[in-house]
Amino acid sequence: MSSPKTQAHPYRSHTCVALNSDAVGQNVRLSGWVHRKRDHGGVLFVDLRDHYGITQIVADSDSAALPVLESLRVESVVTIDGVVKARSEGTVNPNLPTGSIEVFAREATVLSRAEELPMPVAGEQEYPEEIRLKYRFLDLRRETLHANIVKRTKVISSMRRAMEDIGFTEYSTPILTASSPEGARDFLVPSRIHPGTFFALPQAPQQYKQLLMVAGFDRYFQIAPCFRDEDPRADRLPGEFYQLDLEMSFVTQEEVWETMEPVIGGIFEKFADGRSVTPTGSFPRIAYDDAILRYGSDKPDLRNPILISDVSHHFTTSGFGLFEKIVGTGGVVRAIPAPNTADKSRKFFDEMNEWARSEGHAGLGYVTRKGGEFGGPIAKNHGTEGMEKLYAELGLGADDGLFFAAGKPDQAAKLAGAARTRVGTLLGLIDESKFELCWIVDFPFFEEGEEPGSIDFAHNPFSMPQGGLEALTDGRDPLSIKAFQYDLVCNGFEIASGSIRNQHPDLMVKAFETVGLSKQDVEDRFGGMYRAFQYGAPPHGGMAAGVDRIVMLICGAQNLREITLFPMNQRAEDLLMNAPAPASLKQLRELHIRVVEQPKG
Amino acid sequence: MSSPKTQAHPYRSHTCVALNSDAVGQNVRLSGWVHRKRDHGGVLFVDLRDHYGITQIVADSDSAALPVLESLRVESVVTIDGVVKARSEGTVNPNLPTGSIEVFAREATVLSRAEELPMPVAGEQEYPEEIRLKYRFLDLRRETLHANIVKRTKVISSMRRAMEDIGFTEYSTPILTASSPEGARDFLVPSRIHPGTFFALPQAPQQYKQLLMVAGFDRYFQIAPCFRDEDPRADRLPGEFYQLDLEMSFVTQEEVWETMEPVIGGIFEKFADGRSVTPTGSFPRIAYDDAILRYGSDKPDLRNPILISDVSHHFTTSGFGLFEKIVGTGGVVRAIPAPNTADKSRKFFDEMNEWARSEGHAGLGYVTRKGGEFGGPIAKNHGTEGMEKLYAELGLGADDGLFFAAGKPDQAAKLAGAARTRVGTLLGLIDESKFELCWIVDFPFFEEGEEPGSIDFAHNPFSMPQGGLEALTDGRDPLSIKAFQYDLVCNGFEIASGSIRNQHPDLMVKAFETVGLSKQDVEDRFGGMYRAFQYGAPPHGGMAAGVDRIVMLICGAQNLREITLFPMNQRAEDLLMNAPAPASLKQLRELHIRVVEQPKG
Repeated sequence: MSSPKTQAHPYRSHTCVALNSDAVGQNVRLSGWVHRKRDHGGVLFVDLRDHYGITQIVADSDSAALPVLESLRVESVVTIDGVVKARSEGTVNPNLPTGSIEVFAREATVLSRAEELPMPVAGEQEYPEEIRLKYRFLDLRRETLHANIVKRTKVISSMRRAMEDIGFTEYSTPILTASSPEGARDFLVPSRIHPGTFFALPQAPQQYKQLLMVAGFDRYFQIAPCFRDEDPRADRLPGEFYQLDLEMSFVTQEEVWETMEPVIGGIFEKFADGRSVTPTGSFPRIAYDDAILRYGSDKPDLRNPILISDVSHHFTTSGFGLFEKIVGTGGVVRAIPAPNTADKSRKFFDEMNEWARSEGHAGLGYVTRKGGEFGGPIAKNHGTEGMEKLYAELGLGADDGLFFAAGKPDQAAKLAGAARTRVGTLLGLIDESKFELCWIVDFPFFEEGEEPGSIDFAHNPFSMPQGGLEALTDGRDPLSIKAFQYDLVCNGFEIASGSIRNQHPDLMVKAFETVGLSKQDVEDRFGGMYRAFQYGAPPHGGMAAGVDRIVMLICGAQNLREITLFPMNQRAEDLLMNAPAPASLKQLRELHIRVVEQPKG
Repeated sequence: MSSPKTQAHPYRSHTCVALNSDAVGQNVRLSGWVHRKRDHGGVLFVDLRDHYGITQIVADSDSAALPVLESLRVESVVTIDGVVKARSEGTVNPNLPTGSIEVFAREATVLSRAEELPMPVAGEQEYPEEIRLKYRFLDLRRETLHANIVKRTKVISSMRRAMEDIGFTEYSTPILTASSPEGARDFLVPSRIHPGTFFALPQAPQQYKQLLMVAGFDRYFQIAPCFRDEDPRADRLPGEFYQLDLEMSFVTQEEVWETMEPVIGGIFEKFADGRSVTPTGSFPRIAYDDAILRYGSDKPDLRNPILISDVSHHFTTSGFGLFEKIVGTGGVVRAIPAPNTADKSRKFFDEMNEWARSEGHAGLGYVTRKGGEFGGPIAKNHGTEGMEKLYAELGLGADDGLFFAAGKPDQAAKLAGAARTRVGTLLGLIDESKFELCWIVDFPFFEEGEEPGSIDFAHNPFSMPQGGLEALTDGRDPLSIKAFQYDLVCNGFEIASGSIRNQHPDLMVKAFETVGLSKQDVEDRFGGMYRAFQYGAPPHGGMAAGVDRIVMLICGAQNLREITLFPMNQRAEDLLMNAPAPASLKQLRELHIRVVEQPKG
């Protein structure tokens, strides 16, 4: 971008990315930060940096700019007047858009002098998080973080345009609202006008977006701020996060998938930067039960080529008594191939077993194979013939090892899934240059509750059970009921979740009765929505995609703070703005609350 | 929009706006709400409505749809299968996109049965606000409100695209943050992790956007949610509102104006719907002092052609002793023309005087004129010659009346401004078909404080005083210092406000010292920003435009609730979601707060 103004502009005729060899001979004015200074004996080279790029400034002993620039610390802000010259051949920098030129400074005007820095800006050396957050305005000048933040804004802007281009409209829903049923802890806001009452910040705009559909708006989306007062974790910043939230009326789940595949897939494609993306229109749709069986997870990383198989039927009678016993008492045996491991030592396999134990499992059995020869106690006990039959069924070769996760179905699936990930990683089978996307569908509607024999909603209580009212009333096992509920998964991360909603008040009451809540509870807790369903509610459904997670994947960042402008620290503090902070007595009085002192330890 | 799906779609082949005479003979499937039903003796006409429009459905006694549709209350949701037929000539409705056709229903499938409605959807009759807000999902189906909300989303989307098209990037700033210095009351959010401390919701992202500039991002904008815990007023909803917030680095105020005129002007033009808009590039720039003099307001309605003049010098000696005394003791006399009022009775003028008294002023003097003949006591006492001289100076004619506001400059200006508005309105001089935009510039930096002799910031404490550090230190009267501070005004409403900021820490300290705050206060209250200015801060400035106000002007709405999706009522309650509501003891305990019971009255 070159500036819209002429050189009469007091600060710049061009940005620091705009000049190239076409501009040689021009008088220009640039403003920016002193990124680096190099003194070559009477000639000073300054890398002048702004948002857009870097231009090399040269000041020699004839220039009035020399003493000014010499006096400045890096990160000072300065305006340079000078003339563009071509760099000599050996000094051209092909990695910079401005690398073929430099600006000979005639004059330098100081706009802001920098004190000695608490952390460096040039270069990317690791720095303690507390310093980085307290001086976030310096941290954000660093190349990678600056680029990540800009990429984040571009991802979000692209999402918006993609949604608008296919007929969605962005509606902002209230931020001061009532408690939502997402199940996490609410942030509360005391009401000044109504003593003793509180607003809640939305955990998600779930109810509002459904009300929008009932209000007759057809295709809603929102880049929605969401708030959950949960303890910080590596993959969850304290406080707020953003969702691409959407809802559609008169739709089936197929239509939601067909609509959103090009949007989400398109975002990954647009920012793929050479990485491959599962083609739009062919995202695999994997039933939840299959995902648990084949990947040991409802968030499978499809970059990992390893597939889990149930091999219980091979062990109904077996020389390996442990598996026979497990299978005989309702348990299962799942097999996790470890391809081309003939050259792996016994230690590789034993360490996998130890890892499984350290994760709280009973252990991870295994078979080694080298040139067709089986090894290990399971093979020995189960017998070569049985192993060959098993290998033939799984399509495994002469140099492939095999791990076994055995136990109750849930536990075996979980261990198998973790082992699949670990084996894939250790063997280097995961292709980092891919975004592999898939839908996980047919989630269970209910799950076992914490109290023995009790039933809870597995996910969203507002989802439509497959089979409708009949499924809830014909006496079938509630745990067998599936919902029109789905996730979108990329590289092992859930990046979106959604469902077709239940818009029938009777069905809503029946579903809540199944988890032990009464019609009165429904009216008390979700009165607005229950009321809305009485007056003409269209079939509707949608989903919400995690913006932060998608940006992390695209940026290849390992930490949410590397893609967030002003994050809190792990103790939920904003070190830059000094929040949270004590309130004044006047404020507390106005809000009709008092702080309860903690007993001093 | 026609649906992307074929007729195999379970809910619709087309939306309710998509069919016209091109579709005659086609079998179609539509879904929507039963908007109106008309029974023409064995033939039922149903207006089927969705987000996009209305299609007329016909069911006669041969149709299986007839008994189904007969059994439904309005606002039930239904799917219609039928065939498109041309309407007979006399029944074509040219006001509907679908007005040339109707759909003969073969089948009707009920998707959701509506109970008897608590308020009507068809038609626009007034309804009590409490009902409208409790059943907002019905209210939002009504034609005008639905259209206003859709227009609002389009205005915001247009703003975003306009900003992106000129190189701005949207950055989201934190919502859980520290108290801001905007001067209104904060909403507080108790911290669970740090007992006794609170986050505040941002009154505006002022500090964050400045920190973004210091962090080296060049052109920021955000459709930013802002929160102020103020008592509700007609022109202010409780809780949250939206700003188009923006900031630029290395800019002058001229550049901010030149950049934003096409954006804001462009929005008005895009949604003008036949109304005229001040052409971009020629928004008048009126100095604050001139605005106060000529319009009696810093929010002048330029549609009103009346201009106020200072006529004090005519009354330094006058037969009208009251004005002579006022002028002789430091007061002023301001003249407000009432053009072409020869036919107005004495009552018109007297009632203006009574109105001024009812507003707390001493009164509003006047002169009548009819065919060159002056009337009224001021003219009589001041003399015809003096009046003619005055009229000649003001360029007034033989049938123009004149009002006088006299008193201390502030009071006289305020009265003159109110009288100008009232006269313009009563005389029908305000052209409602115009959007008249102007910049008000050169606002004072300081103003008199509440305590006698004290000085406060007039507006934003972070603005740059004209004259810089020198102006603050050379001993001049602080009240004479102007700031690089400006408003954008449309039709008498402030729709945006901004300034060039002060980025020098020394100047920041000096400015706060002038209002009686110490360097320590600056560090305590604005530590993040004060710290940031030490390490290289670029010159920067920007503004914030009120999205809600702009949408109100464009929609011609009189009340913010008519352009807001889910507003609270005037008592700051969300009647739909039932917020605010009591919190559980567990929640309060986790937040380390207790509700203080009010003494019962």
